[in-house]
Amino acid sequence: MSSAAPRTAEPDRLWSVDEHLDDILATVRPLDPIELNLLDAQGCVLVEDITVPVSLPPFDNSSMDGYAVRVADIAGASEEYPASLEVVGDVAAGAADPPHVGPGQAARIMTGAPLPPGAETVVPVEWTDGGLGEGPASGMRARSLAPEGATGLVSVHRPAPARAHVRAQGSDVRAGDRVLEAGTVLGPPQISLLAAVGRGTVRVRPRPRVVVLSTGSELVQPDEPLRPGQIYDSNSFALTAAARDAGAIAYRVGAVADDAETLRDTIEDQLVRADLLVTSGGVSVGAYDVVKEALSHAGDEDEPGSGVEFRKLAMQPGKPQGFGSIGPDHTPLLALPGNPVSSYVSFELFVRPAIRTLMGLGDVHRPRVRAELRAEKALTSPKGRRQFLRGRYADGVVTPVGGAGSHLVAALARANALVVVPEDVEDVAPGTEVEVVLLG
Amino acid sequence: MSSAAPRTAEPDRLWSVDEHLDDILATVRPLDPIELNLLDAQGCVLVEDITVPVSLPPFDNSSMDGYAVRVADIAGASEEYPASLEVVGDVAAGAADPPHVGPGQAARIMTGAPLPPGAETVVPVEWTDGGLGEGPASGMRARSLAPEGATGLVSVHRPAPARAHVRAQGSDVRAGDRVLEAGTVLGPPQISLLAAVGRGTVRVRPRPRVVVLSTGSELVQPDEPLRPGQIYDSNSFALTAAARDAGAIAYRVGAVADDAETLRDTIEDQLVRADLLVTSGGVSVGAYDVVKEALSHAGDEDEPGSGVEFRKLAMQPGKPQGFGSIGPDHTPLLALPGNPVSSYVSFELFVRPAIRTLMGLGDVHRPRVRAELRAEKALTSPKGRRQFLRGRYADGVVTPVGGAGSHLVAALARANALVVVPEDVEDVAPGTEVEVVLLG
Repeated sequence: MSSAAPRTAEPDRLWSVDEHLDDILATVRPLDPIELNLLDAQGCVLVEDITVPVSLPPFDNSSMDGYAVRVADIAGASEEYPASLEVVGDVAAGAADPPHVGPGQAARIMTGAPLPPGAETVVPVEWTDGGLGEGPASGMRARSLAPEGATGLVSVHRPAPARAHVRAQGSDVRAGDRVLEAGTVLGPPQISLLAAVGRGTVRVRPRPRVVVLSTGSELVQPDEPLRPGQIYDSNSFALTAAARDAGAIAYRVGAVADDAETLRDTIEDQLVRADLLVTSGGVSVGAYDVVKEALSHAGDEDEPGSGVEFRKLAMQPGKPQGFGSIGPDHTPLLALPGNPVSSYVSFELFVRPAIRTLMGLGDVHRPRVRAELRAEKALTSPKGRRQFLRGRYADGVVTPVGGAGSHLVAALARANALVVVPEDVEDVAPGTEVEVVLLG
Repeated sequence: MSSAAPRTAEPDRLWSVDEHLDDILATVRPLDPIELNLLDAQGCVLVEDITVPVSLPPFDNSSMDGYAVRVADIAGASEEYPASLEVVGDVAAGAADPPHVGPGQAARIMTGAPLPPGAETVVPVEWTDGGLGEGPASGMRARSLAPEGATGLVSVHRPAPARAHVRAQGSDVRAGDRVLEAGTVLGPPQISLLAAVGRGTVRVRPRPRVVVLSTGSELVQPDEPLRPGQIYDSNSFALTAAARDAGAIAYRVGAVADDAETLRDTIEDQLVRADLLVTSGGVSVGAYDVVKEALSHAGDEDEPGSGVEFRKLAMQPGKPQGFGSIGPDHTPLLALPGNPVSSYVSFELFVRPAIRTLMGLGDVHRPRVRAELRAEKALTSPKGRRQFLRGRYADGVVTPVGGAGSHLVAALARANALVVVPEDVEDVAPGTEVEVVLLG
């Protein structure tokens, strides 16, 4: 990314998509790390290198259920001429004090149990008669049902070299090894490793808490009756779901009416639980654009980077946008336009990267690919604006769904990609290769 | 998938990976649907077709901030010879009772506000003087700061055809249209659409509740001191994280000692909150294999499909496996081997598809690709076993990480793929094309 454009108010300046994004990414900082319980850290970015305090495995142990024996005692053993050994006891997994195995002796040993003193190797139970005096055993009977299995004689049918079926201490990792580096994202295998080396808590960047507000006196909550002039609030639901999908803990605040005082009060109330605020609606050039009215001078203007600035972007949909920070902690705030499609596209382009930057992730953007445009007629796009059309992508081909209208939520629900039409392109013929943002 | 193999106890039979998986998928059934709040249904599968009760938009409305006017009044208007109209009031979004626009009149209108009676088209504020008597306006002043904007005169500088900048009622969807089909997975755009059509709750298959237990007397919880013969419990953490990652609500139960009575009691306690039980450890041929001991006869044997069966699979890692159902509701139970790598690989191959089947998802498997093997020497694999080696995949090439040992958790944490070596292959030379399971 190039360096951010200066945050000076130039009301008629048209910002490019990249300038706006650069400004956001240059301002938003990863959250301070905290210590979290292992399972609460799932999906988070590690901020410490993990060095192993104790080797894995911590001790030589058996990889099979079988008998721990001395190599010389079973040299030359066969099914016809088995080695007969005295069973001196069991070594179960977790055994703190396993029996000593002397010449002519064997200890019955379980997978994961420590190799007992005196023993040099392990023979699987299938290579023995399991102490039953018959042919090769297929397993051991449960200790609780047949306690005599830990005593008596066992016939071993095959020899084994030293340390067969033994996992050596430190063969996975050695004490002092660095097994995970700061910056690693913690998925199930990393959580497995952290638990295995004894880490119950870990230092990570937490998931950002994102507060989502929609604004508009026309908005009604779903399941309520719709009166003339009203529509259902969908943006607060869509943006909350999208924020979660990006990795955030998202709080949906119901729609706020177009009253600046109410909006300011609501935002002030919410600041305590917000690492990022996202609003929709009220950012354009109308006389009731409450977000713009309430926040244009909300910051301490002596403080660099404070206050929210409203801009026009060379973009369709999503021309009007606001970005800045608010409150004593300079909590970042993104003010998105209110049309459902504009709001969702703006989320994908600007809010998702902001959330992932707060998380400390390295790659904050959706993947992009080149694809062949499949359409019945050429796409048209306004000159000087970067257009993001909704499309369905599969196997290198993208097909637009619905039209360019920013109110078309039904088509959006069938899309899995955005087709990017650059600023200097006004027509895209079918068959042209286009850039596509995969919405995953 | 072929039909499942019969569930008859044949202790020495070697099951193929596919037979075991088929048996699981033929037994596990999608969960019964429930009505959930919209945001609680994120990621779930819809079980109803969604038909729109009210058209979207519900009424003709403005797509711009501007003035609602009659076409004839602005025909031939230009900046030099503007049409001068009387402003009869504001139409804000949500307005229930907008003013009538007569000849020679205009109503100031906001984006999303209903087209007022009498008006035929909308001119954007930028095509007018905004009522200020100067040049073209760049926007409106806030109503609260400049209430006079809703009155006086406005000069319109450009003509517009009928219904310009008007979003027609029903242009997104029409009442009665089916906008989402049963089987759709609810992501942010689908949630947006459901809210937009007024649905606050929706009928979906819920996320399965998965209870994860690890077993083994050698297991110690992370952050506790490690005594001789003990290791840290990592499987319960790894499997809980993996179950969540697959879409489940997962409950981690701490490690249970190798005592059949305790295990049976714990499982009975947990059944009330489980749609699926997953255990690790205690499934092999040892004398302390508590899961096998406790569950081999746990089912009502008169009930088809009840009870848990323990098997040997032609697979490495992961040879010993248990599968069946338990308790009065025949809750499915998968008993995985205890080695951390075996347990994780078994989860990916068997538990993840079971969880996704419970959710009613169509595609329950991890994606598979073909890749070129990059390795210093040939891989070896036991004859007759399907081997799943850990690897790192990128750009059509896969490189093994770590060895075949099922205790190598450090290597697992660097893997993002499993390399599949078929049963009939014992050597795989570098450069060979291999099948790869992408762990995502």
